[in-house]
Amino acid sequence: MKIGIITVSDRASKGIYEDLSGKAIIDTLNDYLNSPWKEVYEVIPDEQDIIETTMIKMADEQNCALIVTTGGTGPAKRDVTPEATEKVCDRMMPGFGELMRQESLKFVPTAILSRQTAGLRKDTLILNLPGKPKSIRECLDAVFPAIPYCLDLMEQDFMECDENVIKVFRPKAK
Amino acid sequence: MKIGIITVSDRASKGIYEDLSGKAIIDTLNDYLNSPWKEVYEVIPDEQDIIETTMIKMADEQNCALIVTTGGTGPAKRDVTPEATEKVCDRMMPGFGELMRQESLKFVPTAILSRQTAGLRKDTLILNLPGKPKSIRECLDAVFPAIPYCLDLMEQDFMECDENVIKVFRPKAK
Amino acid sequence: MKIGIITVSDRASKGIYEDLSGKAIIDTLNDYLNSPWKEVYEVIPDEQDIIETTMIKMADEQNCALIVTTGGTGPAKRDVTPEATEKVCDRMMPGFGELMRQESLKFVPTAILSRQTAGLRKDTLILNLPGKPKSIRECLDAVFPAIPYCLDLMEQDFMECDENVIKVFRPKAK
Repeated sequence: MKIGIITVSDRASKGIYEDLSGKAIIDTLNDYLNSPWKEVYEVIPDEQDIIETTMIKMADEQNCALIVTTGGTGPAKRDVTPEATEKVCDRMMPGFGELMRQESLKFVPTAILSRQTAGLRKDTLILNLPGKPKSIRECLDAVFPAIPYCLDLMEQDFMECDENVIKVFRPKAK
Repeated sequence: MKIGIITVSDRASKGIYEDLSGKAIIDTLNDYLNSPWKEVYEVIPDEQDIIETTMIKMADEQNCALIVTTGGTGPAKRDVTPEATEKVCDRMMPGFGELMRQESLKFVPTAILSRQTAGLRKDTLILNLPGKPKSIRECLDAVFPAIPYCLDLMEQDFMECDENVIKVFRPKAK
Repeated sequence: MKIGIITVSDRASKGIYEDLSGKAIIDTLNDYLNSPWKEVYEVIPDEQDIIETTMIKMADEQNCALIVTTGGTGPAKRDVTPEATEKVCDRMMPGFGELMRQESLKFVPTAILSRQTAGLRKDTLILNLPGKPKSIRECLDAVFPAIPYCLDLMEQDFMECDENVIKVFRPKAK
């Protein structure tokens, strides 16, 4: 299974600082997953058309079952990751953003400033995560239990996780 | 008062299995309502244009005050009920989907996969429910207390419920 | 800093009753803010084009950093404030509406009928509040702790609040 990781950051894409966020996603996925997976990883600037093109390439050409983004979900002028996500998706999944904000609200009242969302482009799930490594893990811990079953429903490959790390849930009867 | 019930399911519409979900909605409404009501009931396949046409007919021609759907709200390829709902509605009511997902999250972490929404087509309230009979009752129990007052504000007929079954709320001062 | 207050109400705009809601917002902001601010205040009818024009004028010409509306967020036929807000905003901020509904749900189950939202028009934050003075304070108490940091990220002036009244939160590392 291929998983795309997109770090959206003007500064990381210019090499001004190291992309710790993308690495945090890859580390977390390595922690979670028992089944083999291959990363497709890019660091790009906060430009809506570049974000869209990268998502489309990872979904349609590189056949990623899941694409995870980090960065560009706040209210700053250059933050346009949710807009790019909505543009390339056929159908939106509002429950992911709602749960991630609710989860982050337990830690900081500024969680409501995060505009992150999720959606489906054909048979690819695209998920926005926040920019900070610490928040990335909090958000993934909250929503990941639902992702393997989501991929089942989307007729993607079976994703097996380490249940000592993340408790995945698959309802028995469909 | 007329209430539309739409079961959206490829298999139920072909008669492959019995529509238990539509029946669960009708049973629940019979439990809740003291005031007389008339059901307008259809079982249709997961085709966006058929869902839209059915909603429009029930709202505009058959004058349903409320239309309740079941099925087609997940991430599977054929799930397009929320898209049809958004297409035929003038104004959306995000609070319904948020509360139903929050409620279902108490039972299963996969609740976030449900994309269900609600909206207004002129003076008709359209509400998506999940596909499984058990989840239907959970979701209706959560959101129904607000529906009679919603219909009041939409200048629909007064809906009276059995308060031993469902605690409806109408604020005193408008 | 300029803050716009828009009361959307057919009756208040005709002078049929006093605009207590707009006054409740102004009183609350006076309670909260230590830094100087100037109000830009209008009472207008529930007409989508007038709401849009007023928001655009306050954002683009009068340079309000924040615009707060009251009224027009329910399911009644004339309630179109969220639609006007979405129309004039470039980017939406779903977390505000979600938290306000969640907060109001602690008091009344009809909180889900509120369709209020928030969004960004260039460097102006536009926020819908409910119509009733009591709910206005409840909602502002819930979301305001995140607003000063939101304005920081939008490169607006520094907003200082009275921390005995409202506990504003600004994360240390950006």
